[in-house]
Amino acid sequence: MDANIQVGIIMGSKSDLPIMQDAVSVLKQLGVGFEVTIVSAHRTPQRMFDYAEQAADRGLKVIIAGAGGAAHLPGMVASITHLPVIGVPVKSSNSIDGWDSVLSILQMPNGIPVATVALNAAKNAGILAAQIIGTNNEEISRNVLAFKRDLKEAVEKTALEVEQMKF
Amino acid sequence: MDANIQVGIIMGSKSDLPIMQDAVSVLKQLGVGFEVTIVSAHRTPQRMFDYAEQAADRGLKVIIAGAGGAAHLPGMVASITHLPVIGVPVKSSNSIDGWDSVLSILQMPNGIPVATVALNAAKNAGILAAQIIGTNNEEISRNVLAFKRDLKEAVEKTALEVEQMKF
Amino acid sequence: MDANIQVGIIMGSKSDLPIMQDAVSVLKQLGVGFEVTIVSAHRTPQRMFDYAEQAADRGLKVIIAGAGGAAHLPGMVASITHLPVIGVPVKSSNSIDGWDSVLSILQMPNGIPVATVALNAAKNAGILAAQIIGTNNEEISRNVLAFKRDLKEAVEKTALEVEQMKF
Amino acid sequence: MDANIQVGIIMGSKSDLPIMQDAVSVLKQLGVGFEVTIVSAHRTPQRMFDYAEQAADRGLKVIIAGAGGAAHLPGMVASITHLPVIGVPVKSSNSIDGWDSVLSILQMPNGIPVATVALNAAKNAGILAAQIIGTNNEEISRNVLAFKRDLKEAVEKTALEVEQMKF
Amino acid sequence: MDANIQVGIIMGSKSDLPIMQDAVSVLKQLGVGFEVTIVSAHRTPQRMFDYAEQAADRGLKVIIAGAGGAAHLPGMVASITHLPVIGVPVKSSNSIDGWDSVLSILQMPNGIPVATVALNAAKNAGILAAQIIGTNNEEISRNVLAFKRDLKEAVEKTALEVEQMKF
Amino acid sequence: MDANIQVGIIMGSKSDLPIMQDAVSVLKQLGVGFEVTIVSAHRTPQRMFDYAEQAADRGLKVIIAGAGGAAHLPGMVASITHLPVIGVPVKSSNSIDGWDSVLSILQMPNGIPVATVALNAAKNAGILAAQIIGTNNEEISRNVLAFKRDLKEAVEKTALEVEQMKF
Amino acid sequence: MDANIQVGIIMGSKSDLPIMQDAVSVLKQLGVGFEVTIVSAHRTPQRMFDYAEQAADRGLKVIIAGAGGAAHLPGMVASITHLPVIGVPVKSSNSIDGWDSVLSILQMPNGIPVATVALNAAKNAGILAAQIIGTNNEEISRNVLAFKRDLKEAVEKTALEVEQMKF
Amino acid sequence: MDANIQVGIIMGSKSDLPIMQDAVSVLKQLGVGFEVTIVSAHRTPQRMFDYAEQAADRGLKVIIAGAGGAAHLPGMVASITHLPVIGVPVKSSNSIDGWDSVLSILQMPNGIPVATVALNAAKNAGILAAQIIGTNNEEISRNVLAFKRDLKEAVEKTALEVEQMKF
Repeated sequence: MDANIQVGIIMGSKSDLPIMQDAVSVLKQLGVGFEVTIVSAHRTPQRMFDYAEQAADRGLKVIIAGAGGAAHLPGMVASITHLPVIGVPVKSSNSIDGWDSVLSILQMPNGIPVATVALNAAKNAGILAAQIIGTNNEEISRNVLAFKRDLKEAVEKTALEVEQMKF
Repeated sequence: MDANIQVGIIMGSKSDLPIMQDAVSVLKQLGVGFEVTIVSAHRTPQRMFDYAEQAADRGLKVIIAGAGGAAHLPGMVASITHLPVIGVPVKSSNSIDGWDSVLSILQMPNGIPVATVALNAAKNAGILAAQIIGTNNEEISRNVLAFKRDLKEAVEKTALEVEQMKF
Repeated sequence: MDANIQVGIIMGSKSDLPIMQDAVSVLKQLGVGFEVTIVSAHRTPQRMFDYAEQAADRGLKVIIAGAGGAAHLPGMVASITHLPVIGVPVKSSNSIDGWDSVLSILQMPNGIPVATVALNAAKNAGILAAQIIGTNNEEISRNVLAFKRDLKEAVEKTALEVEQMKF
Repeated sequence: MDANIQVGIIMGSKSDLPIMQDAVSVLKQLGVGFEVTIVSAHRTPQRMFDYAEQAADRGLKVIIAGAGGAAHLPGMVASITHLPVIGVPVKSSNSIDGWDSVLSILQMPNGIPVATVALNAAKNAGILAAQIIGTNNEEISRNVLAFKRDLKEAVEKTALEVEQMKF
Repeated sequence: MDANIQVGIIMGSKSDLPIMQDAVSVLKQLGVGFEVTIVSAHRTPQRMFDYAEQAADRGLKVIIAGAGGAAHLPGMVASITHLPVIGVPVKSSNSIDGWDSVLSILQMPNGIPVATVALNAAKNAGILAAQIIGTNNEEISRNVLAFKRDLKEAVEKTALEVEQMKF
Repeated sequence: MDANIQVGIIMGSKSDLPIMQDAVSVLKQLGVGFEVTIVSAHRTPQRMFDYAEQAADRGLKVIIAGAGGAAHLPGMVASITHLPVIGVPVKSSNSIDGWDSVLSILQMPNGIPVATVALNAAKNAGILAAQIIGTNNEEISRNVLAFKRDLKEAVEKTALEVEQMKF
Repeated sequence: MDANIQVGIIMGSKSDLPIMQDAVSVLKQLGVGFEVTIVSAHRTPQRMFDYAEQAADRGLKVIIAGAGGAAHLPGMVASITHLPVIGVPVKSSNSIDGWDSVLSILQMPNGIPVATVALNAAKNAGILAAQIIGTNNEEISRNVLAFKRDLKEAVEKTALEVEQMKF
Repeated sequence: MDANIQVGIIMGSKSDLPIMQDAVSVLKQLGVGFEVTIVSAHRTPQRMFDYAEQAADRGLKVIIAGAGGAAHLPGMVASITHLPVIGVPVKSSNSIDGWDSVLSILQMPNGIPVATVALNAAKNAGILAAQIIGTNNEEISRNVLAFKRDLKEAVEKTALEVEQMKF
């Protein structure tokens, strides 16, 4: 595997890709190497097992897992690997307003954490992965800092615009 | 394995036993053979895998799985075996009023059903297992019928008591 | 009645049919005989009573009942028959985001279980019915196994597609 | 039946009696004749059927039905009789914070209303029954008016007490 | 006032009329006289006070009040009149999925009941009003019975249609 | 009335006093004059009307109203007076976990605001009233500033304690 | 700063402007001077700090802060300034049906109140700000009174229209 | 600062310490250096600012922040530092069943992630911090692996016990 690939992005179904794409985009922007694939806890349990078990040996540092409804993928991957796992609750079509996705990822029992981000917040999952990588990588840490500076400057710019509006 | 054992009762933690005991008791009452053990999706994922994979070959017909919080055990077992799996949402100490337990068992994606019963309703899980076995077992079917008759008669008896109370 | 008919699919209103159709389709796919009709707990209580009371004698093994809002059909049928009853909470137009449908089917009292599946998950109700029939029917059990294999292979195929995408 | 008996108070289980007792007490206070018994929708469906079907002919004018969890008793009775049915959601031990009791009584489909009162509010069910009887009974109407006057005076009395407290 | 007018239908805003129209229609169908107007608890508190205070003297027997959000109209009217008040929680545009409308109408304190129907269920409010009037009016009672018979026959007709469908 | 009295504290029932006492205490601490009484929207609607209508003329500047369940007092008072009204949702015994209290106070329609504070947060209601008075009263504004400084210093003190603990 | 500017309207993002515009419009209508800008707690924390710290010295009397999701802006501003802060929970695109916006603004700890209004109710935030200013400003107080009179007359007018409709 | 200190544990109030103590204990067990203090977003905003701003320069790699109710501490710290921040929703006494704590930590806007763990799950926050440190620290990574092995063996031991119980 390419030594640059530090983050594995997985999701339960290709229908999650439009949401999970935000993790892809922000990791590219922050200069973090990643891979993307489909791993379903419920339809391909053995594949999920293998992916989680081999992740550390394959050189991954962080796994981002997105799933919706009774979303077991992030928690099950976290039970198998010792890498940090970031869970993205996806508001899929079969979800009850997203509550099932959130609770079945967030409420992990003692011993097996999942770092849960907001509903559909794959972008934040990507940033969090970069922050984790950045704890030992000066360049990526600088990229995160620059990213935060850009956020700030964008707000300041719209603030100026709004202040000059006629109400 | 004892050929009489048709129902496997599993739970994520020994702390679930006081709730899951109700399934044990009603299965005994209804004459259904069963076994009981601890299988944790999150702390013993391989053990869960093995249990689910071998269940049908070992002669089990139905699996009852109880778990709380981000409760993945029933759904993961259902993803591995083709036997019917009954899920008991347990209101464990780390649960948000039971909502997490209910939603993470109930809201399974298309393709992988879990027959979910009410919060903490291990007794109903046992009765449902007996009803399933009873679809091809005259004796157990008769036991379920008798059980329902007893329920009815108990209500009729308390009805009489209440009707004779002085208000 | 046709001896092949093992599953009765009922629903409270014809407006539930687009959802309940998924149970029909998957039962056909899995080779399980079924019948379909409308039975309203609230508008035709006597009809519901008769249907539930005669179901076992007519040769049915499992009943699938779909309903929405204050959904009493699955639970009331379960109170009358001793067959296993699968409840499908339907997110009907008068439902509060589906919560009423889910809770009024799931939260049955001790003694009278309903095997509840996810909101609108009529497909899973069909699969669960097939799993129950399959506990004593080799052919249907094999069909369920094949169905699960197909699910797995479909995921593996999209996984390959996604892995070859350019991000 | 005693011609004075105008309200039937039923509940799913004797364990609901401590709550439903409040309806009894207020009906006595307001001078409305009543009867009390146990009728379980799920454990004695035929008994429920008979009770609801005969209620009007037996001279009842209003039925108060209390139940908890997946509470089907008020709605099923309302589906069978044409009398007004008042539903009391009971926060029973197997309830999820009372939400299941409330939603499975309140959210009845078009055509079959249940006059739902607050969680555990059997007292209000009794008052509402008296108000209904009072629409054609001068004496009971006057009793309701007097009851409301007493409520008002009790508040005015505690208001005086509080105003004279030293803070 | 026309002696035939027995039910007052009020609502907090003209924007509630499309929902509340269902009460109008069913009362006409059931032969119950009614009046309709706008009374806002929050924008015309004195008008609400006057309406509620005069309702019984003006000959009304039942009041139907619809409101959304922090819906105080049904409860406040019930606090002033001794007539039975039926509350219709309206899912207005400023409502949080209808929960605020439901809870602020249903959860009245002891002493002041509101007969609450399902979210947006103005039709059921009308039927309930007719049932209440029908407790002392043979003709309207017969109309309610006929209405229920029609509901039953409509279900039986669609049941036949569905049974003859090809699946 | 004592010209010093600027805040009226009202509540629906004396049972709310243990909660509402926190508003009393903090107003004393902040040097704001107040009065306390019981006003029930549902049991003494006319009294509520009179209180709200006369409040401004009697010299009050702010009203704090606490209530639980279907809590109509704050909103109804706000509909009658043009003074700012602060609502305290009380988790009373008949409340569904406080949700009814919160939503029936918070979700007021456009035109009639209630300044809602957290569940049971009568202390914050008192502070908010002082902040409002303080917008034109130097002394009270200084008292609020001093109160915030004390909060800060108390945290700093416990921070030191914790930093010196042995873990 | 213009001495007439008494209310600062801030929001976390320009995408909140369509909602917050309602506060602008009603403040203009009520004759209260205001300013509008963008201040993000999360993307411009230092800017938020400075804005809150300088608000009182710059002559502001009230701050209206709108935000959605994990909405920290109103509470953080309230922690820094001693002015009254009105919070507007915005149902932004990343919100779970508005619950997160409401709870993260409303549920402030003891010591730091936020005057919370209904979901998206920026208009009510503006009216509340005017009521607060009006506690020491006769003209604005009269404007609020006139505003309430207009609300009343508008309801009375539609009431007349509805009463003359043919049903 | 001691170069070994890699994790900062902060909480809004000393009353959170009994919950947050679990993070302390597991970090000690896993051999990760940490510091503990009190930082209140609402009562000591400047202190929070300073802590967050200096954290990276002081050598911290990860911050664990616990808070309850409208819990702004984790999100605000995350807005100021570029380090990964783990949020622990605490079910404090002023919380609505923990929902406010969970949502106001989890639902952060795009750009500013908080790695949220389950309600009260400070232990999982500690493990997650160790997993993050472990991505570049062989020894701590091995400790996490050993910790997971111990979890597994403890389950296997209780499984044996349960299997030998007499039911």
